[in-house]
Parts: sequence; structure tokens; C-alpha cells
Amino acid sequence: MATLSDIGFAAAINILTAFAFFIAFAILRLQPVNDRVYFPKWYIKGLRSSPIKTGGFASKFVNLDFRSYVRFLNWMPQALRMPEPELIDHAGLDSVVYLRIYLLGLKIFFPIACIAFTVMVPVNWTNSTLDQLKNLTFSDIDKLSISNIPTGSSRFWVHLCMAYFITFWTCFVLQREYKNVGSMRLQFLASEQRRPDQFTVLVRNIPPDPDESVSELVEHFFKVNHPDYYLSYQAVYNANKLSELVQKRKKLQNWLDYYQNKHSRNPSKRPVIKIGFLGCWGEEVDAIDHYVEKIEGLTRKITAEKETVISSTKSLVPAAFVSFKRRWGAVVCSQTQQSRNPTEWLTEWAPEPRDIYWDNLALPYVQLTIRRLVIAVAFFFLTFFFMIPIAFVQTLANIEGIEKAVPFLKPLIEVKTVKSFIQGFLPGIALKIFLIVLPSILMLMSKFEGFISKSALERRCASRYYMFQFINVFLCSIIAGTALQQLNSFLNQSATEIPKTIGVSIPMKATFFITYIMVDGWAGVAGEILRLKPLIIYHLKNFFLVKTEKDREEAMDPGTIGFNTGEPQIQLYFILGLVYAAVSPILLPFILVFFGLAYVVYRHQIINVYNQEYESAGAFWPDVHRRVVIALIVSQLLLMGLLSTKRAARSTPLLFILPVLTIGFHKFCKGRYQPVFVRYPLQDAMVKDTLERTREPNLNLKPFLQNAYAHPVFKAADNLANEMVVEEPEPNRTPDLVATKRGSKRLLYSGSAETLT
Amino acid sequence: MATLSDIGFAAAINILTAFAFFIAFAILRLQPVNDRVYFPKWYIKGLRSSPIKTGGFASKFVNLDFRSYVRFLNWMPQALRMPEPELIDHAGLDSVVYLRIYLLGLKIFFPIACIAFTVMVPVNWTNSTLDQLKNLTFSDIDKLSISNIPTGSSRFWVHLCMAYFITFWTCFVLQREYKNVGSMRLQFLASEQRRPDQFTVLVRNIPPDPDESVSELVEHFFKVNHPDYYLSYQAVYNANKLSELVQKRKKLQNWLDYYQNKHSRNPSKRPVIKIGFLGCWGEEVDAIDHYVEKIEGLTRKITAEKETVISSTKSLVPAAFVSFKRRWGAVVCSQTQQSRNPTEWLTEWAPEPRDIYWDNLALPYVQLTIRRLVIAVAFFFLTFFFMIPIAFVQTLANIEGIEKAVPFLKPLIEVKTVKSFIQGFLPGIALKIFLIVLPSILMLMSKFEGFISKSALERRCASRYYMFQFINVFLCSIIAGTALQQLNSFLNQSATEIPKTIGVSIPMKATFFITYIMVDGWAGVAGEILRLKPLIIYHLKNFFLVKTEKDREEAMDPGTIGFNTGEPQIQLYFILGLVYAAVSPILLPFILVFFGLAYVVYRHQIINVYNQEYESAGAFWPDVHRRVVIALIVSQLLLMGLLSTKRAARSTPLLFILPVLTIGFHKFCKGRYQPVFVRYPLQDAMVKDTLERTREPNLNLKPFLQNAYAHPVFKAADNLANEMVVEEPEPNRTPDLVATKRGSKRLLYSGSAETLT
Repeated sequence: MATLSDIGFAAAINILTAFAFFIAFAILRLQPVNDRVYFPKWYIKGLRSSPIKTGGFASKFVNLDFRSYVRFLNWMPQALRMPEPELIDHAGLDSVVYLRIYLLGLKIFFPIACIAFTVMVPVNWTNSTLDQLKNLTFSDIDKLSISNIPTGSSRFWVHLCMAYFITFWTCFVLQREYKNVGSMRLQFLASEQRRPDQFTVLVRNIPPDPDESVSELVEHFFKVNHPDYYLSYQAVYNANKLSELVQKRKKLQNWLDYYQNKHSRNPSKRPVIKIGFLGCWGEEVDAIDHYVEKIEGLTRKITAEKETVISSTKSLVPAAFVSFKRRWGAVVCSQTQQSRNPTEWLTEWAPEPRDIYWDNLALPYVQLTIRRLVIAVAFFFLTFFFMIPIAFVQTLANIEGIEKAVPFLKPLIEVKTVKSFIQGFLPGIALKIFLIVLPSILMLMSKFEGFISKSALERRCASRYYMFQFINVFLCSIIAGTALQQLNSFLNQSATEIPKTIGVSIPMKATFFITYIMVDGWAGVAGEILRLKPLIIYHLKNFFLVKTEKDREEAMDPGTIGFNTGEPQIQLYFILGLVYAAVSPILLPFILVFFGLAYVVYRHQIINVYNQEYESAGAFWPDVHRRVVIALIVSQLLLMGLLSTKRAARSTPLLFILPVLTIGFHKFCKGRYQPVFVRYPLQDAMVKDTLERTREPNLNLKPFLQNAYAHPVFKAADNLANEMVVEEPEPNRTPDLVATKRGSKRLLYSGSAETLT
Repeated sequence: MATLSDIGFAAAINILTAFAFFIAFAILRLQPVNDRVYFPKWYIKGLRSSPIKTGGFASKFVNLDFRSYVRFLNWMPQALRMPEPELIDHAGLDSVVYLRIYLLGLKIFFPIACIAFTVMVPVNWTNSTLDQLKNLTFSDIDKLSISNIPTGSSRFWVHLCMAYFITFWTCFVLQREYKNVGSMRLQFLASEQRRPDQFTVLVRNIPPDPDESVSELVEHFFKVNHPDYYLSYQAVYNANKLSELVQKRKKLQNWLDYYQNKHSRNPSKRPVIKIGFLGCWGEEVDAIDHYVEKIEGLTRKITAEKETVISSTKSLVPAAFVSFKRRWGAVVCSQTQQSRNPTEWLTEWAPEPRDIYWDNLALPYVQLTIRRLVIAVAFFFLTFFFMIPIAFVQTLANIEGIEKAVPFLKPLIEVKTVKSFIQGFLPGIALKIFLIVLPSILMLMSKFEGFISKSALERRCASRYYMFQFINVFLCSIIAGTALQQLNSFLNQSATEIPKTIGVSIPMKATFFITYIMVDGWAGVAGEILRLKPLIIYHLKNFFLVKTEKDREEAMDPGTIGFNTGEPQIQLYFILGLVYAAVSPILLPFILVFFGLAYVVYRHQIINVYNQEYESAGAFWPDVHRRVVIALIVSQLLLMGLLSTKRAARSTPLLFILPVLTIGFHKFCKGRYQPVFVRYPLQDAMVKDTLERTREPNLNLKPFLQNAYAHPVFKAADNLANEMVVEEPEPNRTPDLVATKRGSKRLLYSGSAETLT
């Protein structure tokens, strides 16, 4: 068992790592050459231009203004300064709601930590159970936990009261937050500009008809059944082949660019290639001419293919985007059942055009059921067999295990620093590395399941990732052994035994989770702000590939918040905090630091870096709420198990009330607040319609909605056609930039400050 | 353990009882004096008039035509003769769909029984495991069961295949039946006459407004948000006081009738009463005058109260019935969310006027959540503490138990007949008696929960009753002990142990369930047709109270199908059949006889007796489907438990696939067929609207919908006002009867036969 000094050492390491990251970040972000890595959001918004054009040669790459290095943490107050409404404008509601998850953590755990430290810690500390058990090694940390209270003591009533306080406080905060987010969402939807998805409904599973094509069918069906509101429709095409061609052309274009680049650096010699297998042998030709020719051919092919796709009825998918004259009509159509057969003519509110995941629009209903079943089974196996390698590494990370396995390393391991390092660091890192692989697998699974919008895909991934983390990180860290072993032992244990088994181990694992929080939470978050991977990739690309301003723009990779991995990680901290709040309150400060730090860092990243891929107007909040409620119930059950082994049996019935109340609370919230995240109220649609008609009585929506939901490949193909085959290289061309409000990094928020004053 | 001869004896008793009931029924139903007990449905429909007026004095009460007694079972083919479409016309879709549950049983179990007897019985019988176990007593019935197969035998593969066959066959039948019932429902709704509920939506939880009354609020809200379709609204009043007054007046009227009756029999003496406490002392007054005066006063009070209720805004409840110009508008309004706050302006398709449970219309949302939580907890306690008295009786019904408790009865009990009687009869009856008390408690609980239609109340009751029966009849009969003891032991057993514990006991309990099926199923169903309780009550009322034809009509109590108790009982047979099909197929013929008999009996009762209280168009079928699926999964899990104790472990993974597939099947069915039972498709509404407008272009709906949803008490009060205070006694008055098509019992189906030919 790790002692207090081990923990202190690990804390020191992690704090130093975090600080190192912060300092590195502070230095790197001030260099103009990194500007596009650390402020890509502003470039994408067109509010910032390349700093390279101004100043001397050195100042193009290195910031020589030493004053700016002094206040190396000044990005923190800057990150906090932008007010919420402006942030919604700047980065979308999703980002703001995402930040509220961190705030939720602070709101829940700060009062709980205060009370735990003023009440629980003295109650636990002033016992001497652990002192009496001479044969057990224990650390001072354990003296702060519930382990230090003798079995059958009446002091457990304090823990019981604490459990009640935690439950009521958490529910109170959750309810208020659900309400706030719900009204933010409604306000956001109401204040929005006219957008195509407000008028559009996605229709899927259009039944085949021998006499009519899908397009005719859609038109007839909606003209008959929504006669007063139907406006137009947009067919969905199966554009896989076209997509392939466009991809292929892009690759060729890259090669062409490469050779043109080469040629422009050394104009005297035109590059040549061999056109045989893999470019290794065969006839030698002029590379630029070769690629120009190939691209020309492909572009013609693409245009032809596009016409085939649009004109042929075979490439029509049994789905369509149907637009209505008013929002009211779209809302009505999306919320009602159209046909007798509830698996045909399925309507739902269309996601934003950029949010649509096109590949899944054509899946028929039966296939969806089968796919879901298959994925459920696959996920079960993934969860319970993925653990085997992790467990292997974790046993390695055990000091005694390592000494046994590689006895010649014993002298090295016995050195105190190394020992502390291994104990404090390795188990957390091993787990973390394995978890990095997972999200992409989960995303593939979700795609296979047939969700039709990127936001739904990410939400599904998040919920799977959470389950995975709960079983494989939380449970498996508390009780040693693989998930499979545990599943087996749980199946062979009684329902009352399971919470006891887990509950008893909880206080003993506090130190492990403290190190985990420091590695994964503190250092991890600090690493997030440094953006080491995008930094390296950007500079590599910049050095080898970038020629034009457009290329440079493509080279910068702002990334997104990454809801599918970020949210489950936060949820792990919620569950740790709630479970340990009444058991070992020493964990709470570490969690609070995590939430605070992460809030600042992610707020900074959202303002300066991340570029949102879609806007779901906070549609993920019900998931967040539900998972915190689950964490609360788990914490109650585990405390029940723990107390019942401590012979505080009289308190068990009182604890049993808590999960029942919590479930009741959840049902209430689900009915009261969830519909806002799923449906759009008729009243709001009517208000917006009326306003619009008053302002613009002669509004013609048809052109506005014409091509809103065209497949992105068509747009790409159209662009190609407009580009007129091949661009001539223009290395000195300056892109048309929007006049920027913000030139210097030091004046970064002057714009927002102006708007404020 | 009961031997084969015990079972034979019990079967003989039950068959004889059933036959006795049938013969008694055949005789009683032919007596004209019982006509209103056995054919009330025809009276209510106005297709049959009192047979008392024709023929001599004796033939008024006793059927003297001896030919009619010969074919005493001829009601059976008669019951089967009416074709389904006519039956829907005659008794509503609910009744027909209810009968299909029995047919579903026959369809599922007949092929299973055939295969079980040709394949499984030989496989089980040709072993000698039980013969070798000399120290165990066993009966020939056990030789037919899985117990007779040695552990580890490869013959268990036959049982495994049987489990697969049962699952696939049951799912196949279930799916076809769900589809059929769904299309029957849609056809029924489409072919229906114009009904107010097609145009009406029930709005609940109307938020309070300081400036406007509920009525104004409703009108404004719907005029704004459904401008094109809104037609009118009907407010809902809190008429509890009025209801009380009407009740009170009815009581007084009864007394008045009683004294007028007395007076008419003995016209020379006017009856007198004392007006003091309980009519025992005080001033003596003329009874008729006294009651006439009192009723007059009360009638005036009722009229005044009615006006107060309607005019005062305080008696307005925050709910209303909103009518639309077209079905399309009503469908849209019922399926969409109206307001930003999803707990306000809750709309749902209005139930039929007679289906509404008026008392619950005003419950606010928060209260509903709390009530549901409270009832869930209360039901938990009811389920697990109600069992104590049943277990007590069941231990008494044990031969050894009785002998120990009352040793002086030993000689009597040891008589073979008595012993068989006790063993075959008592345990089933004890359980049955206890279960009779339960439905009314469950109905009270459902009412408290806040459902707003009688059909929903009955559905909820049925689902609770089913859970209760599953735990307290099925599980507690398999493993001896109260539900509470079992809950305790299950909580202390592992998840894999529970199916084993139950599975092992299943084959041993086959004989118990056979007797249970005979007592509860065979004799119970035969008793249902006899209608002993309504018969006695009708004759008592007829003798003491009835004066006029109207009274006689009120005295007859046709009753309803009783979905809340009937359906869970059938479900118990489904679970018994599915669980025992692969274990002890000997149960199947008993269940088949039950389903066949019950189908004929209930078809007869639905045609001749029951008067449906409401029409939900088969809305309960998803519940029926779900419960059969649950029974299937339970049977799979128990077989898994049983086989794993028989060391047929290799088959367990293969059996594990079955529940997964079954759950997948259920999900598919839920998505594919359930929406038809919850929502009305827009397409169908549009078709009906268009047809109607083509046929009646100048249709004015407003008068049609004017008072459709008025509180029934108002209608009663209106009737009183029209009655002009007190009716003069008219003992010889003949009621206005609709001309009857059917005079004699022997020509009972001539009408339907005519329609057919």
C-alpha cells in the first residue's frame, strides 16, 4: 500500500509535469510560427491573418518581445474573460454546454468537500482502529477514511447523514442545471437565424413502389398528407462511386502539387516520373504534364458520373429531405406517425446539413434491428475480453510482480525514487494507453449501428465508452482481476454480496485513484493545452507540403472537443467523487483541482483552438444528467454494501430509501426536462413563423432550401467543375482574407473587451 | 408426491364438477325466469324482450318444452357460429381481440404438444433413472419428465432442440398475431362511424394564469397555435359535490320506490315512518309524502349546484377537451409537444367519453411522479407480504401438516378419497380465494396513480396482477416458502444459482400445477358460465325490489370481460405451458383443454352476457405480447438452470443464444407493431377526412361535438330536471322496447344466420 510520502511524490511529479506543460505552452504559443497551432479557431473564423507577413525575418518565427514571456499564465484569466453569450456566438452552444459539465462538477463537489473536511475528516481521524491493528500496514491517508472507524460504531450515522446530504445536494444541482441547459437550448433555437434544418424533415424507409420512383412517391405522399405546408423535397443519392472518384482526384492533385512545388523551387529542371508499377520502372514522362492530364480525365469522369447519379433512378436511396413552408409544418411532420406501417415513412427532424452521416441514410428497418443486436453482443465481448492485456500490464506495475519477473532489476527498483515512480505512475499510464485505442473502435461500431448524424454517433460512442470505463477502469481497479473474472465472480455471487465485495475494497483503493486522477486528470489536461501532436504534424506538413495559404489552412488541425471520449472521462471523475465523498473524502480536493483546471483549459481551447464539426444545441445533456444519476445510485449501493459489512446494519434500510428517491428524481427530470432536447415545441415554431412572416411577408423559401441538403460530394464535384480543371501554381497569391479585428496576440481579447465596454 | 391415481382422481372430480356446472347451466338458462341473467347482452342491445309476457303462468318461470333439454351442450356450437366481423359489430373489437388470446394459446401449444408427445415423451420414458433410485418415491408422471434422464446424458440435446423449436414457433405465432391484431385495429378505426374522440384531444396541466380563466386560456392557446384546425373546447368541471347530491337523491328515490311499492300492494294503508334518528323514534309522518318532499328539495338543490359549478371559475379544472375541425388536426395536436415546458399543455388523444375516469383529470405533473413512486413501493410491499396467509393455508393443505396439527382427524384423512381430495383440491383453492381479494386493491392503487381512462386503469391492474401472480403463484409454488423468504434467498444467491434453484424444482411441481390447472382452469371456467353470483343476486333483487321494467333492467348485472383479472390468469397458463413444454410435456394437454374450453365459454359469454364498458380497439395487445415474450425468456432461463445441474453444460452456451434472440425479436416487434396501438397515423386520418368532406361537404361538426365530453353527472342532473321532480308510480307501465328480432331462445342465432345466408 502506498504511503502518504508516495502520494506526495507522485503529486509532486504530476504537478511539475503539468507546470512544465504550461510553461512549454506559454513559450510555444507566443511564437508566430506556432500561431496556427494555438489559435486556429480565429483563422477559421477569418478574424486573424498570418503573422508571417509583418516584421523582420526572425520575428516571423520567434517572438522576440521578452515582456510577453513574463506573465506566462496570463492565458488563464483571458480564457475566463469571454462572457457566455459571446462564447455561444463564437463557438456554438455545444461547446458552452460542454463546459458546463466541468462547472457542474465544481458545483457538486465544492460544498461536499467543504462539509466532508469539516465533519467527516475529524470523525474518521479521531478513531484508532487502524493503530490497534498492528499487523496491517496502513498509511495516514487511510486514517482519514471510513476504515479507521471500528465496526458497529455509532459514528456511522455521520456517514449516513453525509450520504443523504450528498444525494440531496447532487439532485438539487442536477435539477437546476438541467433546467438551465434546457432553457439555454430553447433560447438558442429561438434566437437562431433562419436555417434549412428548421424547415426540413428527414424521411427514411420510403417503401418501394413498382409504378413510381422515390422522388414521385415522396412528392405525392406529402402533397396528400400535408397539403397546406408541403414545399419541396431533395432526394438522397447513393454517391459512393462519385465519392471514390473525388477522393482519387484529390490524391492526384496532391501529387501534382508536390511536383509543381518541386519545379517552382528548381525551375530549371522539370520533374519526371516512371509510369510503371509503383513508379519504379516503365516509361519516363514529365510528371506535371502526366498528372495534369490524368486529373483532367478524372474531372471529366466525375462530371459524367455526377450526371449519371442524378439522372438515374437506381442511385436514388429510399430517403429524402422534405421541406415545408413553415417551421410549424416541419415540427408537425417530424413528431407524427405518417403511415400505417410504423417502419415506413419514418420522419424525424433533419440534423444540420454538416451533421449528417450520409452513409447510413438508406438502411432498412429490419437491418437496423439486427445491426443493433449484433453490436450489443460485440460490445459485450469487447468489454469483457479487452481487459486481458491491461491486467497483464497492471500486474507488471506491481513492485513485487516486477521483482519476481525480472529479479536482476531488483536493486534498481529498490531505489526509493524509482519505487515511488513505479507505484505512482505506471498503473495509471498503462490503463490510459489502452484506452486511447478504444474510441475509434467504438465509433466504427456506432457507424455500423446505423445512426444518421455525427452528433448521435458521438453520443452513442460516449455512452459505450462510459460503460466500458465503468466496468474496466472503475470496477476492475477496485477489485483486482480482469472484467471477465469479475463477471464470473459476480454471476456466482448473490445480489447482496456484490455491493459488499466492491464496497469493502473501496477505501483501500483511494491511493490508486488519487494517482490516477493526477496522471489522467492533471497532467492529461495540461498536456491537452500543449497540443503536442498537432504541433508536430503541423510543422512537418508546413515544412514539406505547404505552398499556398490554402494549404497552410488545411495543414492546421484544430480538432474538436471530442465529446465521445471527453465526456466519459469526466463522468469517471463524477463517479469517483460521489463514491469516495462519504468514504475517503481525501479524494475530493484532487477531483476539485481536476475540474477547475480542466474548465480553464477547455475554455481556452474552445475559444482559441477547437472548430466544432456540428451544432446539436446541447442535445447531449440528458446523457450527462443520466450518467451522473447512475454514479449517484452506484455510490449509494456501494456505501450500503460497505456499511453492512461494518455491522452498521441498522442504517441499511435508511440507505435503501436513497436509491428509490434518486430513481424517482430521475423519472421526474426525464419527464420534465428531457422532451426539450428531443422535440421542438409547436408554440415556439409558431412564434418564429409569425415573426418571420411579419418581417418578410414576401419571403420565398424555395431558393433558400434548394440545395441545402445536397450530398457534400456534389458540392465538391461542382467546385471542381467551376475550378476549370487545373489551377496554375500561384505561390505568391494572397488569399482573400476578411479584414481582421485582431492582429496581435497580446490584444487577443481587445475585440471582446470592446464589445463589453 | 402425488401418484398418477391421485391425479386421475382429481381430474375426475374436476371433470365432474365442470360437467355439473355445464348441466346446471344448460337447465337454468332455458328457464325464462333466468333469461335476463344468461342473455343480458341482448336485452341491453334491445334485441330481446322479457319472455314473461307470453304463455301461461308456469311457462313464465319454467321451460316446459322438454325437447330443449336434450341437447344440453348445444350452446357450444352456437357460441362458435357467429363470424368474427359480426362479433366485432356485436361486442366490440376489445372482446374479439381478447378471445384471440385464447386462440393464441391454442395456436402456440397445439403444435408444441404434438411434437412433445411424439418426440420428447419417448425420449424421457425410455430411461430408467427413476427406477434405479429405489429410495425415492416417484409417480409415472415423473417418468414422462426430464427427471427420468440420467445426468450427463446426451439425450439432453433433444431437449435443447425442443427449446429452439418452442422459441421459434412461439415467436412466429406471436409476430403473425401482432400483425393481425394491429391491422384489425386499424381497420376497425378506419371503418368506424364519426365519433367525437376522433376529433378531440385531451389537454391537461394547463398552467394557471393570473389574468385569464382556464377557458379563455385554452381558447387563446389553440387559436394561436393551431389556427387552421381549432374548432372548440369543452371545459372540465370539478363536480364532486354535485355527484354526491345526485347519489343522495338516488338513495332517497330508492326509499320512495320502496314505500310506493308497499302502498301499491296494500292500497288501503299508507306507509308511515319516524323521522328521528335512524327511523327509530321521533314524529311519525306519511313516508311517501316525506320522501317526495325531500327529493323535490334535493332536485332543486342539484339544479342550483349545477348552475354554480358551470358559472363559477373556481370549479374549473386545469384540463379541457379541445376539438378540431378535422381528424388530421386532432392527430397532429395529440402527437406533438405544445409548449416549452413539457409538463404543461400535455395533449393526448381523448379516450371515448365512456372510457374517461373523471377524477384523475386534474392531477398536476409533480404529484403524478410522486404518486407513481409511492405506488411502486406499496406494490413491492403488497407483493412480498401478502403471501404470508397463503403460505399458512398451503402448509395446512399438506397431509402431514394437517395430521400433526389436528391428530384426532387422522382416521378421517387417511381415508383414500378424502386424502386425494385434500391433495388434489385444497392448495389450488386456497390460493384462488386469496387472489379474489386482490384485484380491487390493485384497482385502487391504479386509480391513485392517476390514469385517466378506465382502459388504462385495467391495463395497469392487469400488469400488476400478472407480476403478483408470477411471484406469488408461479415462483412460490415451485419453491416452497413465502415470497419474502424467497426474495431473501434470491438476494443471497448468485445470479447463476437462481435459475438453477428454480429449474431443479420445476419437474417436481408438475403434479401440483396439473391440479391447479384443473381447479382454476377447468372448473373455474365452467363456473364462469354458470354465473352463480349474478343469478342469485338477480333473483333476490327481482323478488324484493323490482317493480318496473326499468328496475329489472338495473337488476341484471351483465358484468364485463374483466381484463384486469382475466388476462393475467391466461398469462399464467402461457408461462406454465412454455416452462413445462420442454420439461414435463404431460402438462400440455391440460393447458390445451383449458384454452379450448375457455375460448368457447368466453365466446358464449361475450355474445350473450358481457356488456363492454369501453372500447379501446384492442389497445391491450402490446401488453399481452410482451408478457408472452417474458414467459418465453423465463422458460429459457429456467431450462438453462435445469440443464446446467444435469451436467449438460455444453448445451448452456447454445441455450444462452435463445434469450438474446428473443429480446431482439421483442425489440423488433415493439418498433414494428406497437406504434399502431399508441398513435393514429396521419395518412389514415387524412383518408377519413377526405372521404367525409366528399360525402358531406357542408358538415357542421360543432353541434355534434357540443356536449360529447360533458361530465356524466351533468347529464344525470339534466335528466332529473327533465323528469319534472317525481314520477308517479306506474306499476303496469310497459317500457318502450325496440322491436326485437329474437323472441325465443331456440331461435337465438336465427338473426345472425339470416345475415349470413
